[in-house]
Amino acid sequence: MPGKTVLFLPDKLSVTVEPGQTLLQAATKAGITLRGACGAKGVCGRCRVQVKSGRVSLSGQGRITPEEAAAGWVLACLAVPEDEVTVYVPEESRLTEHRVLLEERESGVLTAIETAETSLRPLFGRRLVTLAPPTLSDNTDDYGRLTWTLQQHGERAPFWAGYALLRSLPRVLREANWQVAVELAAVEGATEIQGVIPASGDLKGPFGLAVDIGTTTVAAELVDLATGNVVATAGTYNRQAAFGDDVISRIIYATETAGGQAALREAVTETVNGLVGELLRLRGLNPEDVRAVVCAGNTTMVHLFLGIDPTYIRLEPYIPAVNMPPPVRAAELGLAAHPEAWVYCLPGVASYVGGDITAGIKVSGIAAAEPLSLFLDIGTNGEMVLGNQEWLMACACSAGPAFEGSGITCGMRAVSGAIEAVRVLPGGFEVIYRTVGGEKPLGICGSGLIDLLASLHQAGVIDRGGRFVPDQESPRVREGSEGLEFVLAWENETGTGREIFVTQADIQNLMRAKAAVFAGIRTLLANVGLPLEAVEKVFIAGGFGRFLNIRDAIAIGMLPDLPLERYTYIGNSSLKGARLALLSQAVWEEMKAIARRVTYVELSVGNRFMEEFMSALFLPHTDLSLFPSLGKERD
Amino acid sequence: MPGKTVLFLPDKLSVTVEPGQTLLQAATKAGITLRGACGAKGVCGRCRVQVKSGRVSLSGQGRITPEEAAAGWVLACLAVPEDEVTVYVPEESRLTEHRVLLEERESGVLTAIETAETSLRPLFGRRLVTLAPPTLSDNTDDYGRLTWTLQQHGERAPFWAGYALLRSLPRVLREANWQVAVELAAVEGATEIQGVIPASGDLKGPFGLAVDIGTTTVAAELVDLATGNVVATAGTYNRQAAFGDDVISRIIYATETAGGQAALREAVTETVNGLVGELLRLRGLNPEDVRAVVCAGNTTMVHLFLGIDPTYIRLEPYIPAVNMPPPVRAAELGLAAHPEAWVYCLPGVASYVGGDITAGIKVSGIAAAEPLSLFLDIGTNGEMVLGNQEWLMACACSAGPAFEGSGITCGMRAVSGAIEAVRVLPGGFEVIYRTVGGEKPLGICGSGLIDLLASLHQAGVIDRGGRFVPDQESPRVREGSEGLEFVLAWENETGTGREIFVTQADIQNLMRAKAAVFAGIRTLLANVGLPLEAVEKVFIAGGFGRFLNIRDAIAIGMLPDLPLERYTYIGNSSLKGARLALLSQAVWEEMKAIARRVTYVELSVGNRFMEEFMSALFLPHTDLSLFPSLGKERD
Repeated sequence: MPGKTVLFLPDKLSVTVEPGQTLLQAATKAGITLRGACGAKGVCGRCRVQVKSGRVSLSGQGRITPEEAAAGWVLACLAVPEDEVTVYVPEESRLTEHRVLLEERESGVLTAIETAETSLRPLFGRRLVTLAPPTLSDNTDDYGRLTWTLQQHGERAPFWAGYALLRSLPRVLREANWQVAVELAAVEGATEIQGVIPASGDLKGPFGLAVDIGTTTVAAELVDLATGNVVATAGTYNRQAAFGDDVISRIIYATETAGGQAALREAVTETVNGLVGELLRLRGLNPEDVRAVVCAGNTTMVHLFLGIDPTYIRLEPYIPAVNMPPPVRAAELGLAAHPEAWVYCLPGVASYVGGDITAGIKVSGIAAAEPLSLFLDIGTNGEMVLGNQEWLMACACSAGPAFEGSGITCGMRAVSGAIEAVRVLPGGFEVIYRTVGGEKPLGICGSGLIDLLASLHQAGVIDRGGRFVPDQESPRVREGSEGLEFVLAWENETGTGREIFVTQADIQNLMRAKAAVFAGIRTLLANVGLPLEAVEKVFIAGGFGRFLNIRDAIAIGMLPDLPLERYTYIGNSSLKGARLALLSQAVWEEMKAIARRVTYVELSVGNRFMEEFMSALFLPHTDLSLFPSLGKERD
Repeated sequence: MPGKTVLFLPDKLSVTVEPGQTLLQAATKAGITLRGACGAKGVCGRCRVQVKSGRVSLSGQGRITPEEAAAGWVLACLAVPEDEVTVYVPEESRLTEHRVLLEERESGVLTAIETAETSLRPLFGRRLVTLAPPTLSDNTDDYGRLTWTLQQHGERAPFWAGYALLRSLPRVLREANWQVAVELAAVEGATEIQGVIPASGDLKGPFGLAVDIGTTTVAAELVDLATGNVVATAGTYNRQAAFGDDVISRIIYATETAGGQAALREAVTETVNGLVGELLRLRGLNPEDVRAVVCAGNTTMVHLFLGIDPTYIRLEPYIPAVNMPPPVRAAELGLAAHPEAWVYCLPGVASYVGGDITAGIKVSGIAAAEPLSLFLDIGTNGEMVLGNQEWLMACACSAGPAFEGSGITCGMRAVSGAIEAVRVLPGGFEVIYRTVGGEKPLGICGSGLIDLLASLHQAGVIDRGGRFVPDQESPRVREGSEGLEFVLAWENETGTGREIFVTQADIQNLMRAKAAVFAGIRTLLANVGLPLEAVEKVFIAGGFGRFLNIRDAIAIGMLPDLPLERYTYIGNSSLKGARLALLSQAVWEEMKAIARRVTYVELSVGNRFMEEFMSALFLPHTDLSLFPSLGKERD
């Protein structure tokens, strides 16, 4: 059976897919990332497209009404082209936001940590050496002479070399008159000699890549390994997003759909290669100029990126195939880099505490600090680490993707047009908000949702249990199709022409998310018998870190009631950690040591977490003594 | 220009060669190894073939007479086919002896050393392990669990794994119910996990190969790595022999002929693959069953085998590209083995003291012994090592290939029909000899030549300077085309129907060869200020070791005049060393340590060696006090 051709409009992109592949897979192949939260199960209804011509077979209707169906609307994940088809993809079905927020501002803490890394000793580097020419009384072999000289320069034995290099070594050394630049990669405690070139040659670069593979977004930095400078940055959506919002739906797609794992691997590879292409074009470089790649990601992202079976991450007792993957050649992954470049994935701790968190521990400095510190990364999942130079303990709470805007009716990521700060005035009659970029609002993102929850409670619109107080006068509180709702922005204010509102279900989602975070923190502390106030420093990482209103996060009982000066934003510590490792063999080794040091606390073992979670399903908490500053304000 | 087809008779083998390639190259491609001592220069005249049909162009005549040329005789190394040609290859132009002598008898010393290697821990092995299944409170990742378990079993970190393995690991471990056989290769201080298979599966083998790549012959053993037993052995001529007798002519061919290096690499690869095929057929195995290969060879052989530029081995100051080549995958060399099998070449010391000698040092045990010992390997070249557990010193003397039968008119290797022992009765009238296998004599080999030299002197046929005594009565001493000759066997006695004789030039060659060996030994001893009698043990390796008459070798002044009980034959210590390393990671590491310990003495530095050489060009020596036992016999 031959492949089927699909033409996408208005892009005018045409691709051919294998028989049986869906329009969703075709779109991904064409580079069009559709929205999708359910893992291509036809449930979330976000990947709506309109078939303009040609025949498709459907494995279900999803939320398409009969009228829509008559007009050709289908869910891309349920539609398989039967002959040549033309498909229209509307804006609302696309992950259209092209700009992913990269770190723009360095916090004081971070800069201090980075400058403490005095030695630039990247995972790939060029070392200029002059070898003593051989004589009858110094007749060491060429390769032995080279490795001996490298050792004298402090490079680390044992050394490795490919045969292409050994085969030409005698000629190269003599033609270069024994003055050469040696290209060295640090791999698993050994040093690989990847090239020996005349010292007088063109010595641009070398360059490396730091990549943060997030569940939702992927960000990359192109780094000059000779200077340590970031020369270009880029970010975009993870094309895997079309196959599910969170890691669980991705794993389900990988394991339950034929070819699913390969499709996810391809999607993330293409995402990364797209970024690399962009970075290289910016600097006029070629893939061959990229000699090392360090990736940070959660455990599932790393498995899918490396093409490793993620099945058992999701099944009790939640076992990853590998926490510390050995480096792999770029060629083996199909990455746009020098084929011999090693790709290093930062070591993880457990199925739900991955290399991105190890990066956070390193970047925050908590593993080397004396004060008891807490590291929090609240993104699609919520991971946290408690500890200091003596011990480290981590857990992951399934906070759900509420703070990433998923599972919330009008939720969205913290991109242009997202409501990032909100104040509801008493009684709920008036609302003040600020959007990212000052645009007309399109939806509400994580930091806005936290503000909203705090504000609705303070305004008396919702009670301590997060339920709408009945019989309110404000027209913003109204009966919706599934109970009471609160309208933040009327249709005439918004960029979409539709109202922005939160439902009772949205609020319950938020309550569960914030309760999970707080319960995780409490459980970690309970493990070592310490109270909340023992935490001397809190580092917050993740996409929404920069916009987060700490005071409101405390007010809703998500974060512990500590003095604000104990809190520090550290931004995208995953990407930063990848860069630090790329630039320092010592950091790379240190991250492995850190990952080994961390004790993973499985929250599903025992009742403690569930009890804490139940107690935290209030604003701020059932136990008000845990939030003394809120009490004081009330006095 | 298309390739030319050459049909070889009487073999009826047909091959197609590139334009410009010679009949010699065509024959090699067809698997027919022609004799050749000059490096395809048209000088030695051994590769005579007869063109039966078709046209060849000649770059020279060589020793072909006009009558022979008229009958179609050409030297294969000088003839290039111009169209389809048919060529007859006579027996005398072939390296026809198919049986290369392998070690048949273990000497007492060797067996003792081998049994002292108590632990069988091969460079590739299968380890049966049972992993503790993961639980919520023991949630180590699959790969970490595997490597941890291996470490508990004493395997050596760091571990490596290919991605094919990691990708399937979760499924394999669970399907095998956590009981698996792990396939492990020791590589450069790390352990590579090459496979994880159910412990209940078919666990035949694994098998490994020990290969001795000699300049003239190649021998191989197929070894069961689970038991340490040699399950099959085979030997043959090195097909490179067609391109030159000794390492120097091979290097010249490699560096001065277009494609020469590749041709030599191909020739030895095909030689080894031929042996492997033979071994595997004997045991009903496939190349994939061979999981590790250890090769021993001199430095030039190893370079050519690995495809590494040998140019500078030959040019002062005689620098090899590499003495300790890193392991390389069988697939990269095109070897008939599992594509991922590592090929390890035993570490060498210098350009003319290679891994074969390191093997000899290990097998003889001199590096670990208290008494001062001497190791001698007299083959195409002559290498020797002096020392004990405290120090080791080595040199190579270009003894020339006389003892291998080359450069001697009726010389041949120690194979069936070779005169291996001779006695010339006083006056030179009668000769008693013994041939290998009791066959009619075809020529004389190294041990026979040593006997002959001693005997001719004792019989009064030659004087102390090795010159024929003039005016002798014996009809065996006669005037030949280039001076006096001595006939060992008349034409009616021989297997060829031609006389077997030695010329004055042959005797001068032998005198130089024996003088070089003795001068080497004296020079080594002089370096440490010790007399000959300080040597407490002498180990003799090499093809002719088993047949060597030590008394005669002393009588001609080749070996030092020591009590016979100090001499031990150790046979093919190169092959034996390869097998020991294959079966023991500790031995492999030890050999690297040994190679590093050896001080190489370059004999061309200073005048000592040349002076010793000149003094040794007598029978037995200018200084008779060095041979007291001979003096006593004479009394």
